[in-house]
Amino acid sequence: MSSYAIGLDYGTNSCRSLLINLETGAELGSEVFPYPSGTQGILTCPDDPQVARQSPADYLAGMEQIIRGALSQAAEADSEFSPANVVGIGIDTTGSTIIPIDAQGQPLAFRDQFRDNLNAKVWLWKDHTATDEAEEITALAADRRPAYLRKCGGTYSSEWFWSKILRCLKHDPEVFDAAHTWVEHCDWLPAVLCGQENPSDWKRSICAAGHKALFHDDWGGLPDEEFLKELDPKLSALRGRLYESAQTAEKPVGTLCEAWAEKLGLPAGIAIAGGLFDAHSGAVGCAVQPGTLIKIMGTSTCDITVAEPSSAAEEVPGVCGLVPGSVLPDAIGIEAGQSAVGDLFLWFVNHLVPDSYGASLGEKFVEMERRMKDQKPGATGLLALDWNNGNRSILTDGQLSGLMLGQTLQTEAHEIYRALIEATAFGALVIIQRMEECGVPVEKVVATGGLSLKNETLMQIYSDVLNRPMQVAAGEQTCAMGAAIFGAVASGGYDVATLQQTCCRFLDKTYQPIPENVAAYEELFALYQQLHDSFGRAEAEPVSLFPAMKKLIELRDRQR
Amino acid sequence: MSSYAIGLDYGTNSCRSLLINLETGAELGSEVFPYPSGTQGILTCPDDPQVARQSPADYLAGMEQIIRGALSQAAEADSEFSPANVVGIGIDTTGSTIIPIDAQGQPLAFRDQFRDNLNAKVWLWKDHTATDEAEEITALAADRRPAYLRKCGGTYSSEWFWSKILRCLKHDPEVFDAAHTWVEHCDWLPAVLCGQENPSDWKRSICAAGHKALFHDDWGGLPDEEFLKELDPKLSALRGRLYESAQTAEKPVGTLCEAWAEKLGLPAGIAIAGGLFDAHSGAVGCAVQPGTLIKIMGTSTCDITVAEPSSAAEEVPGVCGLVPGSVLPDAIGIEAGQSAVGDLFLWFVNHLVPDSYGASLGEKFVEMERRMKDQKPGATGLLALDWNNGNRSILTDGQLSGLMLGQTLQTEAHEIYRALIEATAFGALVIIQRMEECGVPVEKVVATGGLSLKNETLMQIYSDVLNRPMQVAAGEQTCAMGAAIFGAVASGGYDVATLQQTCCRFLDKTYQPIPENVAAYEELFALYQQLHDSFGRAEAEPVSLFPAMKKLIELRDRQR
Repeated sequence: MSSYAIGLDYGTNSCRSLLINLETGAELGSEVFPYPSGTQGILTCPDDPQVARQSPADYLAGMEQIIRGALSQAAEADSEFSPANVVGIGIDTTGSTIIPIDAQGQPLAFRDQFRDNLNAKVWLWKDHTATDEAEEITALAADRRPAYLRKCGGTYSSEWFWSKILRCLKHDPEVFDAAHTWVEHCDWLPAVLCGQENPSDWKRSICAAGHKALFHDDWGGLPDEEFLKELDPKLSALRGRLYESAQTAEKPVGTLCEAWAEKLGLPAGIAIAGGLFDAHSGAVGCAVQPGTLIKIMGTSTCDITVAEPSSAAEEVPGVCGLVPGSVLPDAIGIEAGQSAVGDLFLWFVNHLVPDSYGASLGEKFVEMERRMKDQKPGATGLLALDWNNGNRSILTDGQLSGLMLGQTLQTEAHEIYRALIEATAFGALVIIQRMEECGVPVEKVVATGGLSLKNETLMQIYSDVLNRPMQVAAGEQTCAMGAAIFGAVASGGYDVATLQQTCCRFLDKTYQPIPENVAAYEELFALYQQLHDSFGRAEAEPVSLFPAMKKLIELRDRQR
Repeated sequence: MSSYAIGLDYGTNSCRSLLINLETGAELGSEVFPYPSGTQGILTCPDDPQVARQSPADYLAGMEQIIRGALSQAAEADSEFSPANVVGIGIDTTGSTIIPIDAQGQPLAFRDQFRDNLNAKVWLWKDHTATDEAEEITALAADRRPAYLRKCGGTYSSEWFWSKILRCLKHDPEVFDAAHTWVEHCDWLPAVLCGQENPSDWKRSICAAGHKALFHDDWGGLPDEEFLKELDPKLSALRGRLYESAQTAEKPVGTLCEAWAEKLGLPAGIAIAGGLFDAHSGAVGCAVQPGTLIKIMGTSTCDITVAEPSSAAEEVPGVCGLVPGSVLPDAIGIEAGQSAVGDLFLWFVNHLVPDSYGASLGEKFVEMERRMKDQKPGATGLLALDWNNGNRSILTDGQLSGLMLGQTLQTEAHEIYRALIEATAFGALVIIQRMEECGVPVEKVVATGGLSLKNETLMQIYSDVLNRPMQVAAGEQTCAMGAAIFGAVASGGYDVATLQQTCCRFLDKTYQPIPENVAAYEELFALYQQLHDSFGRAEAEPVSLFPAMKKLIELRDRQR
């Protein structure tokens, strides 16, 4: 008799489940639930485009639907399957996506009093209202606690835990005062499934705590009271109602309570694993291990790898975070990312590609790829920076913008598209080089996400630019796969590495670097680095950019 | 009884006439003739996109049609008009547009032997086959005759007289050897009208000779034999079959011969003025005088002004040419230009503007203007260089390319369009500043050409960037107007200045700089200059470009 686990992946616009057979790795069921509230699940504010909130009720409604959906699909797919043999559930969510909670463990949003108040809802990761607060925290930390910044790449972000809470404190004290505590989305759902009503019982994820809340053993957990007091005395008072420890995701936070077992049609008492963030879970679902970088390629990218705990990697300047246990239990999790990848291509196709390429977005992408796929590196004569949405790694600077160089009167849209793809690949290489400089080797890259499955030309360009083999995860639910693996391990009797071998699948085709393309991209990357440093680094020694246009023309003429 | 003159303007794709009343300035007739040969009048070569030739027969066929057309329109418009009262004809053409001529004064192209040989046809100004030869001439002059380069902006162009002849010599010696002499298009047509069969009788235009053939009194006319011999002994031998003097355009080259008088329906014996280039003629037709810069705005621009002969202006580095008498008889003509203006906008709208802006080019331009016209300077957050077709002034470097800075994920096509317009205006300001540094004042700018009449937003942007009032010539035939003025002066009894006052008309609206826009554009121009020097000047001291993106974002947020 086989055993099964369920992974739940809570994304930005929807949540989905994946039910797997732990002996074969077979995916037996997967159900998607689009959040019903707001616009594509996001509550927005007409007066402030920075606001992005969600309804916590959507998460609970989705839970029932995606688990029951997966169970009935599994029953249909495999006559031997029984819900009684599901041994555990793992959950990943977006983050830092945080919820104000009352003393009874309920989201404030559930109270009538706050029904129409967006500040009492879930503050979604991409809410950008707290830029001022992020700057304040960064400035204070730079002055008083530089160690805090070293673990998060040098800049505390407006997307993160303390920025959002401080923003609420300052702009909606009524909500702040009503909140007994605040919880990450990925920590709330496991507690709900376990029926834990007292927030002080809730287990906190080291992935969320370490990457977003400045939690680290080096300074005894969360930022100290004195530091928080300087930001605001009320923030310091909140510290005691948050948490003192955090745990890795393979550890159970409890077991499924009777009430939810009934709702879901699952046996009570099965293991509920600790939550974690989607990208980290996706890395596990792509068989991350030391030396392998996982690129989760969507509108932006998240680059995740792990280093041996004994490795030299203590800090990687400009990389979002280094947190022991945030990905795999016994390794240092390293997270970086690019602010715009798919979004950059979407911007271009939405705003600057004429209909002669096709009527729909999809047709335009296909036609642009067809027309540029056989161009040699450098043949466009173009070079771009990938900063249209700022730079998240390694410059950690939102006040950057796009740059395109080398246009002539003959330049066509598909050539610009190719240059934008190349720019994102160069941006990816900058991150990898920085990791390696800091003692984190990257020998192989595994890509996951829609772009990696849909765009072969993009993948070959990446392989050529990165000069590394690129594998592509076969499944489209790698995040939920990682969560399912943690659900199984939390039940006991399984280990992550064995389950990765059983369950993680890749496309047959591995993209291999083509030596002559590698050589041409090395020339282009040298120019990219010049532009990167000239426009992106205050401290860079100024160099003459006069040769840049000449070099692009020379390379173009040579490659055509 | 009024007197009349006819101006003929031979452009790239067509020729046209303008018949004016010399007492009132009234325009009584104008006829256009598109050249019938090739593609839009241009003979091209499928294997070499640099080739651009024309058929000399097209010019003669056009002559008859455009003069007869203007005469019959004039008779219809004014019952007092009679061809007997036409006193002179002036002619302007493109240049350097040169024709190989046999010893009988006939174009080689008229011989059966060369019927299908493009090298025996007219070498149109925009033929770019002679890049290697231009480089060879520039290098030799830099070494042996630096004075030559100082009068033509520092670089001898592939579009010019000697480059093209040397190209023919090296690549088609049969044609070169068959040519007794070579003539500029603007010198050939007046000789034809006068019935001059012996090329040694032909008068040569100082405008063409001085700007394109390195002709200058300082060194006794054309480049010396020793210099030419180093390029090729045959070139040196050709020198003696070219010309020893050149004259200004108001001087007659002869009178209309019987044969052509009959063809055209005009009295024999009327004055035929010296030829000159279209842009120079257009400047005269826009009432150029010291302190006034004429911008002829089309696919590229030509910027023409004049300086008092007593002025300090001896040379203006990076500006195409300074030639005494090339525009007005008693002033130094100064020519500069930008390689792509209208062409830059056409490239953008053809390749990168989605159909949501409109179905046709025209609709797209109108809609883009509508959506950006009320944006404040800097509000797009964008900054561009206008080098998609290289830089003709003041860097004189074809190996440059476009640059666009400041794109975000929200940037829209009409904002890029605005940034491209601004880039061309900044490029125009660089030229004006260079002129003023060299003692050539520019107090007022007059624009002519389609762009200046069609695009009010562009004109206001130019006025704000240049911080000068901008007038717009009312007529669409300012080149032909200049030629008609020279036709009249050549007949005796008229002077250029008086005719300019009578005939040159401007739109009622003068664009005035708006102080707050001027201030914002000063900030942007400082950034433009940084990019201009960083990417365009080998000798520029490297500066940090790190502040550029920050400054653009700061200005954008301030201006929105």
